[in-house]
Amino acid sequence: MDILMNIREAKKEDFDAIWLIFSEIVKVGETYAYNRDTTKEQAFELWMDTPRKTFVFEENGNILATYFIKTNQAGPGSHVCNCGYMVSSSARGKGLATAMCNHSQKIAKELEYKAMQFNFVASSNEGAVRLWSRLGFETVGRLIKAFNNPKLGYVDALVMYKWF
Amino acid sequence: MDILMNIREAKKEDFDAIWLIFSEIVKVGETYAYNRDTTKEQAFELWMDTPRKTFVFEENGNILATYFIKTNQAGPGSHVCNCGYMVSSSARGKGLATAMCNHSQKIAKELEYKAMQFNFVASSNEGAVRLWSRLGFETVGRLIKAFNNPKLGYVDALVMYKWF
Repeated sequence: MDILMNIREAKKEDFDAIWLIFSEIVKVGETYAYNRDTTKEQAFELWMDTPRKTFVFEENGNILATYFIKTNQAGPGSHVCNCGYMVSSSARGKGLATAMCNHSQKIAKELEYKAMQFNFVASSNEGAVRLWSRLGFETVGRLIKAFNNPKLGYVDALVMYKWF
Repeated sequence: MDILMNIREAKKEDFDAIWLIFSEIVKVGETYAYNRDTTKEQAFELWMDTPRKTFVFEENGNILATYFIKTNQAGPGSHVCNCGYMVSSSARGKGLATAMCNHSQKIAKELEYKAMQFNFVASSNEGAVRLWSRLGFETVGRLIKAFNNPKLGYVDALVMYKWF
């Protein structure tokens, strides 16, 4: 069965499940440029309200992962999108991030974006860097010590980019 | 006389003058990642409300230029700031951008930022690229065709960065 079949657009009612994933990841503070004490209301705005679309990965009625797609820069930059992906700790290693990233590129093209950009990938998040590279994203920028990792201190952040 | 003396924090009442500068620049669409039809209300939010601080350059009661400073990324990225600078077309070539950039770096250090980042400098904006380079910003990233210049079409956008 095609794993992409499990991905559908998020509904407002999905947010309780999304929040469990979001808060788990953001509290650790090692991957996303969100405040570690982001509230549920703020998370709703960031993940569901501001983005152009939000999706969930659902299996047997359980939401295991989620991603959003939004325009990265307005005006002269509006042909480039940005996505954020989160997988529940209980569902890692099953290829869900790969599935979501492939799905998001399909959606991006449908929405007539010409490229996708990740603005702030922690270089210490080696799994993500390797994965995005494998999926065709090029590391086009390195921001020295721009990411304050709670365990490692200041590490570089990468800008990754893919023109379709 | 020290040109930095002409820079002061913006007040709400300054916004009519700021809007003249903002709308003139944004309508042309060659430098900023704002929609070319940004309304005055949206501009107030972008330039005065969202940023941490906004400044104006005033000479003989006239506001000739303006800049903002804000946190570039939340959470693990919150030690890096971002600034935007605009100079009225009638006041270009007088060193106001240099003065504002120097001023903003002083303010950034006072606010305890450790670095400053420009996310989206149009490579076609050669004057700006040259100026930021001269003021110590390094080009750390190149986003291929990420900037849609109304005259030139897709041109590269640069990420520029300075650790203090």
